[in-house]
Amino acid sequence: MSANRRKVYDLVESSTFKNAIMGVIILNAITLGMSTSQYLMGQMGGVLSMTDNVALTIFVGELLLKFYAYRLAFFRSAWNIFDLLVVGLGLLPRQEGLSALRGLRVIRAMRLLSVVPQMRAVVQALLDALPGMGAVIVMISIVFYVFGVMATLMYGASFPDWFGTLGRSLYSLFQIMTLESWSMGIVRPVMAQYPSAWAFFVPFIVITAFSVLNLFIGLLVNTMQGAVEEEQEREFEDLRKLVKDETDVVDAHVLSLTDEVKALRAEISALRREGGY
Amino acid sequence: MSANRRKVYDLVESSTFKNAIMGVIILNAITLGMSTSQYLMGQMGGVLSMTDNVALTIFVGELLLKFYAYRLAFFRSAWNIFDLLVVGLGLLPRQEGLSALRGLRVIRAMRLLSVVPQMRAVVQALLDALPGMGAVIVMISIVFYVFGVMATLMYGASFPDWFGTLGRSLYSLFQIMTLESWSMGIVRPVMAQYPSAWAFFVPFIVITAFSVLNLFIGLLVNTMQGAVEEEQEREFEDLRKLVKDETDVVDAHVLSLTDEVKALRAEISALRREGGY
Amino acid sequence: MSANRRKVYDLVESSTFKNAIMGVIILNAITLGMSTSQYLMGQMGGVLSMTDNVALTIFVGELLLKFYAYRLAFFRSAWNIFDLLVVGLGLLPRQEGLSALRGLRVIRAMRLLSVVPQMRAVVQALLDALPGMGAVIVMISIVFYVFGVMATLMYGASFPDWFGTLGRSLYSLFQIMTLESWSMGIVRPVMAQYPSAWAFFVPFIVITAFSVLNLFIGLLVNTMQGAVEEEQEREFEDLRKLVKDETDVVDAHVLSLTDEVKALRAEISALRREGGY
Amino acid sequence: MSANRRKVYDLVESSTFKNAIMGVIILNAITLGMSTSQYLMGQMGGVLSMTDNVALTIFVGELLLKFYAYRLAFFRSAWNIFDLLVVGLGLLPRQEGLSALRGLRVIRAMRLLSVVPQMRAVVQALLDALPGMGAVIVMISIVFYVFGVMATLMYGASFPDWFGTLGRSLYSLFQIMTLESWSMGIVRPVMAQYPSAWAFFVPFIVITAFSVLNLFIGLLVNTMQGAVEEEQEREFEDLRKLVKDETDVVDAHVLSLTDEVKALRAEISALRREGGY
Repeated sequence: MSANRRKVYDLVESSTFKNAIMGVIILNAITLGMSTSQYLMGQMGGVLSMTDNVALTIFVGELLLKFYAYRLAFFRSAWNIFDLLVVGLGLLPRQEGLSALRGLRVIRAMRLLSVVPQMRAVVQALLDALPGMGAVIVMISIVFYVFGVMATLMYGASFPDWFGTLGRSLYSLFQIMTLESWSMGIVRPVMAQYPSAWAFFVPFIVITAFSVLNLFIGLLVNTMQGAVEEEQEREFEDLRKLVKDETDVVDAHVLSLTDEVKALRAEISALRREGGY
Repeated sequence: MSANRRKVYDLVESSTFKNAIMGVIILNAITLGMSTSQYLMGQMGGVLSMTDNVALTIFVGELLLKFYAYRLAFFRSAWNIFDLLVVGLGLLPRQEGLSALRGLRVIRAMRLLSVVPQMRAVVQALLDALPGMGAVIVMISIVFYVFGVMATLMYGASFPDWFGTLGRSLYSLFQIMTLESWSMGIVRPVMAQYPSAWAFFVPFIVITAFSVLNLFIGLLVNTMQGAVEEEQEREFEDLRKLVKDETDVVDAHVLSLTDEVKALRAEISALRREGGY
Repeated sequence: MSANRRKVYDLVESSTFKNAIMGVIILNAITLGMSTSQYLMGQMGGVLSMTDNVALTIFVGELLLKFYAYRLAFFRSAWNIFDLLVVGLGLLPRQEGLSALRGLRVIRAMRLLSVVPQMRAVVQALLDALPGMGAVIVMISIVFYVFGVMATLMYGASFPDWFGTLGRSLYSLFQIMTLESWSMGIVRPVMAQYPSAWAFFVPFIVITAFSVLNLFIGLLVNTMQGAVEEEQEREFEDLRKLVKDETDVVDAHVLSLTDEVKALRAEISALRREGGY
Repeated sequence: MSANRRKVYDLVESSTFKNAIMGVIILNAITLGMSTSQYLMGQMGGVLSMTDNVALTIFVGELLLKFYAYRLAFFRSAWNIFDLLVVGLGLLPRQEGLSALRGLRVIRAMRLLSVVPQMRAVVQALLDALPGMGAVIVMISIVFYVFGVMATLMYGASFPDWFGTLGRSLYSLFQIMTLESWSMGIVRPVMAQYPSAWAFFVPFIVITAFSVLNLFIGLLVNTMQGAVEEEQEREFEDLRKLVKDETDVVDAHVLSLTDEVKALRAEISALRREGGY
């Protein structure tokens, strides 16, 4: 590592640098929030827009410094890639006036999650829970796909808004899974035309509710087991000490008894020698 | 088992065969999904329909081979019966043009759940949870039946769409149990005519919510107990080893002391013999 | 106990009697269900009505026999009182033609819960959970009362259907607690007139959701603790046996060593006596 | 502490005083509830209003006595500050006729939570759970803020009622998080104009549902760990006693054996002395 790179590395790892960046993120989050107000935009739209550009410039500079310091190791941290993406969103050309892209800039405030260590831990814990849920998520996906295709084929022609395409069906089934207006909004109108539609939707609700329940139980049992295991390890250590202490007392007595017997034997040997006289 | 049957048995049990079938299932699931699109059906409807028929033929062949290999043992596996049913659905005559039956063909994609071992394990775990919930499910069924008959008798005449028949009442009660539009959609209109209807529906909601909660808690405690029991068995093994090791140390000392005393006794016997001179 | 009472006691306790009553309950439940159908009532209304009367007569006879057998001890079982109440509902005069009372007869089918022992156990488990939830339920009641009075005073004049009286407010708050149409149906219309109404309803939702969550967690921890305690008692028994066995081995060695030493002492005494010659 | 202050201190700490205050609170809660009824207000509005004023006077007197007894220590208890606030609300000038302020008086009935010790314990338990949830709550707040700003920028112009300002967006997102009418009421109308709006709202629902789930699991594991730890400490005490008792038996035998050996040694010494003659 060259001396320059070393210096940059020390800089981006310093807590002053990190705190400064955090301050810019919070300031930027506030100005982004202020820019939602028509009144404030009218009064100080120029200032808000400039602050945003300055913040963006700082973030780009920060990432360039980090990239210079870490080189390709930069990409080994998922957090860096996250930062790169949300900052990159702000660099997209704006002249098209796509309001969607304008909104996406705000995701930058999510960097708070990647900069504050406690937040990182929470997000990490959430992400760590995902792999254990893999199999159930795949199962729910298959159920969604099969029911989605069936709904499209069976009800698509009559209810194009809800089940006209596979995508619409999947969205409607997601809505039904969350139980939002599933009966009054969707299933009762469908049943008016296909009276046995309940035999399609009620099982779907029961199956997905039961699967989500199991997802949750699996997650809970895993978390709890981790906590209990730690607890038990500590308890086991206590127990090991307890048993050791207690048997050590007995052992000490046995050993001192052994000394006693050895002394006795020495005495007898002496006696025998004397007697052998 | 004849040599031929042996060969077929080895074939259907081989992982190559299983992977090939899984490939056909996935391909078939994709083409079934594509057949929901009007556009794709127009462009390549013939290909999609043919692929479906080929897949169905392969599945029928697979089941015939399995049946030849296992004979009646084929029916011992619930998974085989599941496969037989969902494949059988595709063989139903199609000329009637029942769109419902057309949709049912897609259930075939559910075979992914029976072919991938991890998926099988998840489904098995879900099914294993059922018996422990038996008593509560029967209880909820009785509550549903009684409230369903009561609702039909009390509100059926005034609200035929919701409570006109026992079946409609059960469906409406299921909707109320899921809390979907229960008040604004159902109970407030009913209360406009029967002001004390809340005394029927609110207890129903509380009873079913409480029962479902207990169902869930029972399920959770069972799962957790299983996990904890395993954990404790391992811990107990550790503990047994610990106690054994500790007492073995003391025991070894006691035994070596015993040897010492025996040697002493031999010496004294010798002394006595000498002294007897 | 007189010989007659003894006989009646043995009869009502016999499993044949219990099974017969259970059969009548199930039959009666089915006929009550059939009486919800206009068509069946037209075809065989007389038969259904007669069956119902016969079943009611049998239940009255059963309770009289039980009362004769147990005397006042009859009232010690909550299940008997439950049976008495639901059977008594069927004896209320019917000429008033109150459809509500007609419906209430069906509660009789709930006797299945009190006759089948497994169902009794489930209901008992649900009821046993109640006392542990007492304090939280009282707290939720106070919160409901206070928010109910406030809502009536603040929004009653403008929204008489929802908050016109304390009773209506409590019902609306229950609906809001279940999250049914709380925003689109209630709070948004209220906010159109009182823009700060969200500051009343959102905290109410958060407080009740959090309280119900704690109710649930308390229930769960209690159930789990019961299960874990049992488990641990069994484990402790195993442990006691293990420790006892292991120390018994050492103890046996120590005792046999003691015998050895005693024999040695006897020998030395003999030697001393001989030497004393 | 002066004699007078001592007397006041003893008074406000006496159970008679506390029960009297509790009685006034309950009476006041009932009259406040009665004042919601137009009919009762017409019949006895004067009495109800007077009772309320008397109760308020009593509460002010109580707080003054407490303040005299505790001096500044009064402010050390959060419960006292709570009492001060809810009583103080009743002293606000009423002539403005603000119905909102009129309603706020009822919060006074919440003092039941601070006066009954069991209720205090429940509220305390709820509050104790909060710090453990801190990090997740901050995370959910950040997610809300970012999605709120984005929704305002993207959909505010087209749907001013729902997303017109940051405050409205946050309220709408809260409604969506509770799943109330999220699809039929909000997202489908938005999707009619912005077809890809589902890509904004569905992830929001999944992220918040998952976060709330983790909040809940964290809370549950914490509570359970507390319960299990207590249980394990008691079990460990039992175990310590068991191991001690068992090893004490062996130890006693070893010690009595040591006595035996010592006696033996004395005998041999004697023998040696005799033999030395």
